[in-house]
Amino acid sequence: MKIYRVNMTNLTFVEEEVPEEWKMLGGRGLTSAIVSKEVEPTCHPLGSKNKLVFAPGLLAGTMAGNSGRLSVGAKSPLTGGIKESNAGGTAAQRLAKLGVKALIVEGIPKGDKWYTLHIHKDGVEIKEENELLGKGNYEIIHTLTARYGENTGVITIGQAGEYKMSMANISVKDPKGHIRSAGRGGLGAVMGSKRIKFITLDDNDGAGITIQDKEKFKNAAQIFNKGLLSHPVSGNALPKYGTNVLMNILNEAGGLPTKNFRMGQFESAEKISGETMYDTIMSRKGDPTHGCHAGCIIRCSQTYNDKDNRYLTSGFEYETIWGFGAGCTVDDLDIIAHVDNICDDIGIDTIETAGSMMIAMEAGIVPWGDGHGIVKLLKDEIREGTYLGRILGNGASYAGQAFGITRIPTVKRQTMPAYDPRAVKGIGVTYATTPMGADHTAGYSVATNILKVGGHIDPLSKEGQVELSKNLQIATAAIDSAGLCVFTAFAIMDYEPVSHAVIDMINAQYGTNWTVNDWLNLGRSVLRMERNFNIEAGFSSKDDRLPEFFEEPVPPHNAIWDFSGEELDQVFEY
Amino acid sequence: MKIYRVNMTNLTFVEEEVPEEWKMLGGRGLTSAIVSKEVEPTCHPLGSKNKLVFAPGLLAGTMAGNSGRLSVGAKSPLTGGIKESNAGGTAAQRLAKLGVKALIVEGIPKGDKWYTLHIHKDGVEIKEENELLGKGNYEIIHTLTARYGENTGVITIGQAGEYKMSMANISVKDPKGHIRSAGRGGLGAVMGSKRIKFITLDDNDGAGITIQDKEKFKNAAQIFNKGLLSHPVSGNALPKYGTNVLMNILNEAGGLPTKNFRMGQFESAEKISGETMYDTIMSRKGDPTHGCHAGCIIRCSQTYNDKDNRYLTSGFEYETIWGFGAGCTVDDLDIIAHVDNICDDIGIDTIETAGSMMIAMEAGIVPWGDGHGIVKLLKDEIREGTYLGRILGNGASYAGQAFGITRIPTVKRQTMPAYDPRAVKGIGVTYATTPMGADHTAGYSVATNILKVGGHIDPLSKEGQVELSKNLQIATAAIDSAGLCVFTAFAIMDYEPVSHAVIDMINAQYGTNWTVNDWLNLGRSVLRMERNFNIEAGFSSKDDRLPEFFEEPVPPHNAIWDFSGEELDQVFEY
Repeated sequence: MKIYRVNMTNLTFVEEEVPEEWKMLGGRGLTSAIVSKEVEPTCHPLGSKNKLVFAPGLLAGTMAGNSGRLSVGAKSPLTGGIKESNAGGTAAQRLAKLGVKALIVEGIPKGDKWYTLHIHKDGVEIKEENELLGKGNYEIIHTLTARYGENTGVITIGQAGEYKMSMANISVKDPKGHIRSAGRGGLGAVMGSKRIKFITLDDNDGAGITIQDKEKFKNAAQIFNKGLLSHPVSGNALPKYGTNVLMNILNEAGGLPTKNFRMGQFESAEKISGETMYDTIMSRKGDPTHGCHAGCIIRCSQTYNDKDNRYLTSGFEYETIWGFGAGCTVDDLDIIAHVDNICDDIGIDTIETAGSMMIAMEAGIVPWGDGHGIVKLLKDEIREGTYLGRILGNGASYAGQAFGITRIPTVKRQTMPAYDPRAVKGIGVTYATTPMGADHTAGYSVATNILKVGGHIDPLSKEGQVELSKNLQIATAAIDSAGLCVFTAFAIMDYEPVSHAVIDMINAQYGTNWTVNDWLNLGRSVLRMERNFNIEAGFSSKDDRLPEFFEEPVPPHNAIWDFSGEELDQVFEY
Repeated sequence: MKIYRVNMTNLTFVEEEVPEEWKMLGGRGLTSAIVSKEVEPTCHPLGSKNKLVFAPGLLAGTMAGNSGRLSVGAKSPLTGGIKESNAGGTAAQRLAKLGVKALIVEGIPKGDKWYTLHIHKDGVEIKEENELLGKGNYEIIHTLTARYGENTGVITIGQAGEYKMSMANISVKDPKGHIRSAGRGGLGAVMGSKRIKFITLDDNDGAGITIQDKEKFKNAAQIFNKGLLSHPVSGNALPKYGTNVLMNILNEAGGLPTKNFRMGQFESAEKISGETMYDTIMSRKGDPTHGCHAGCIIRCSQTYNDKDNRYLTSGFEYETIWGFGAGCTVDDLDIIAHVDNICDDIGIDTIETAGSMMIAMEAGIVPWGDGHGIVKLLKDEIREGTYLGRILGNGASYAGQAFGITRIPTVKRQTMPAYDPRAVKGIGVTYATTPMGADHTAGYSVATNILKVGGHIDPLSKEGQVELSKNLQIATAAIDSAGLCVFTAFAIMDYEPVSHAVIDMINAQYGTNWTVNDWLNLGRSVLRMERNFNIEAGFSSKDDRLPEFFEEPVPPHNAIWDFSGEELDQVFEY
């Protein structure tokens, strides 16, 4: 394995050996290690001292199910802290097949030109790019597929990344030529600051990965894959309804944030639920289930068609549908699907965009419930980079300041996702304390609070939530480092043989003798590294808190956010 | 003396006794003490938990020269930390004459209505206001003078405060009916968040202040006043040329930040200098010297007329002329005067506005040197609260993010004033370390670095700068608490009898036995209080640093910013 390092200031490329300390890191563990080691924590995230790092996970390129997530890391222009965001698509496995453990992009070009990177077995070519500047992700992927063939991987930014908006994401072409995104934290702006419009990956004749004990790996992978498929969440609910299976569940639990976190239930939840979505997909000849990367066996993605049975969107997630739906009180799934498609094309994180739209509604720019108004803001303002587009394109905290709005549901300036922290207290602890800024995937306490995975902890009681969030944050950092989809966690948490299978796969591949605890220690060290980066960047414990408006009770349970700072800080005893 | 407390949530007023601990505080010392004690450091600056505090200084209402500054304090929407900003004008002395030691405004009204406060000897009346909403400060003062008579004091916000922009200031009517501003840190947005458009002050039949030993006070005041007038800076340079006497001096020293801090000299400095300004004022029948408040004997203000000898602006400061002039490479004093007038009318801090304009030029919205372009941005965008106006109206750091600009000359998100920190290193230490965010008035090391007041320390050498800034920050906090103009510091620093006269006046008024050191200890305790508030608000030592682009050498001396964090942190040993 090797490191590919690109310097955009000098437009140079070098191939490096993997240092000993990084050999047993991958995915988030590796991006966070590289950012921690090489990026000055106080640097400007869009300046020449920031670095953008892409890394497949420890198990990438193997037959382990759902092991093809690509981690992207940098100092975040949204939060100002360290950021890892991961996506499906076809890039991670291609990097693994090329034997590339990480791609590090540093520096900023002199002058005004834009570039692309082409990655192949002999290294990285840096080329000037003009044709696709100003274009959206769908056109880019379409054009590059025509230019280089179906089998070329693509990592790209839309217009938002070119504008260096803090909610710009990095998109990855998936097996169907659709879009997967490393959504959170504005990493697309970092790629834009380095003036790279897209990266193509050709894995022909790649050196590939080495597996020390193939037979052992195969056996473990079979146990792992079977475990994923036999768990009711990853084997049943997700493949059928996608992540939007959660809509009715959260509404029932009173934890569905409605109208910018004013209520915990949305009267029209049923209309935008996973069940309604499934029926709609089926009636319109869509595809209710497919994977976001080769080797995904959970297959929680889908193709959602419009009334005329034409493609509208895919990777249509619960958090997206929550944000533009319940969050903005829009009850029309077709409009939300259209919004999702536009977000993918412009290259903006749907959760942060939903946050901005809630602020636009607070400010009276469009009325509550006006899905067409959202479409207009996306197409005419954000995509065009107008002044209003730049206000909204920098996320909810930023937009709030423009209009003097104080009701802003963010932590570390990142918008909270689809679970009310007062009614699902475990996830509130994660929002407050993860180094990533409000992020459900960083320690998905919803699993245990609501889905009763890994036991059950009453979502409305404070008891046990800090410990729960801490353990899930550790496990998630470990899973992210393996390059596994976070939804493998359900089976890992509930079935002991599945967690052992992960360790067996790692040991079989690398010839190590890890225990489950070694793997979790990796998670712990990643969290400590990330938290330390944030402290060095200027964060304090005051940043590990929810905004003051969560003191308000949220119906129907009239739950309030009632954790003290001291209680929350116990998370950091990892 | 008494405290007037207004609660805008309930629209109620109470008069309170002054607690023992606040009796020997005034001005900044008192606003910072009240904010520290009563405002939750992590609260939203525009939310109901922030408080806006007005306080005259310890010597307000006496015959001490230049003792009529009004301190305004709150948590700043610009910096996120504690803020004190002070202004001349006629309000402080009226409050003193009413026996009001502080006016505390708390809460936020329900509903959408706007209000005014009318302050008189029996308390505060809260009235609804409609007529003057949306109006600028000049019209407000004109209308209120007509409505209530010449002798009514006015504290007001322009349109920017109504929009809750982070660079909105609070303006105070001066003896000529012109405008003085508590400029920095967005306190106008806090007043706007409480939906108070203006405050009027009627000091008729006020209880007044008590002076324990009138004879002793009179003698000390005479020494003090004489000292101010005999110092070459406050007795000579400032009355003649105003603060703009500094233009040629800083240009000569290579410390005049030009084109957003790219150079230390501006080729057209002479055209916008104090000398040119004086000649222009004289040739146009303006007034080269008057005071910003009754009892000001330094008289550094002036009336600057246009080509037709009509009023254009007053209180035309060096920092304003620097910012829109050298900072934006505009070489036309008439346009800069027009810009100053518009800023006063909209109610925006000229330094922060200049910072925003530099960013607008970096982003290519208007060309460098285009003064008319600045006028247009102020009138058509910021005054109108357009989307671009809201981007620019929230200050340079905010505007920078909108356009992905990384060259932003701010500390704690507040724009640096008119002295390059690389070429005048003492002021750089103050920018970095004052709890106020980049602010020259918080510890004016320029005095000793450039003007050779209080000794001389080479501006280009690191040696002695930390100690200098520390001592000046302490002295300034003490001076601000006395309610004295910061320009009294020149005589206080150079003439020992003048500093003793300050103490004698305080002792004569309050019957105390303070030494100079007791007064400086007050300054120390104010700084500690402020710094502690900021830490509790989430600041860390990483916030006490300059932006990374100051690593670039600045011509003509090719000086760089070369202080380590450890060196800077020694300031805090106050």
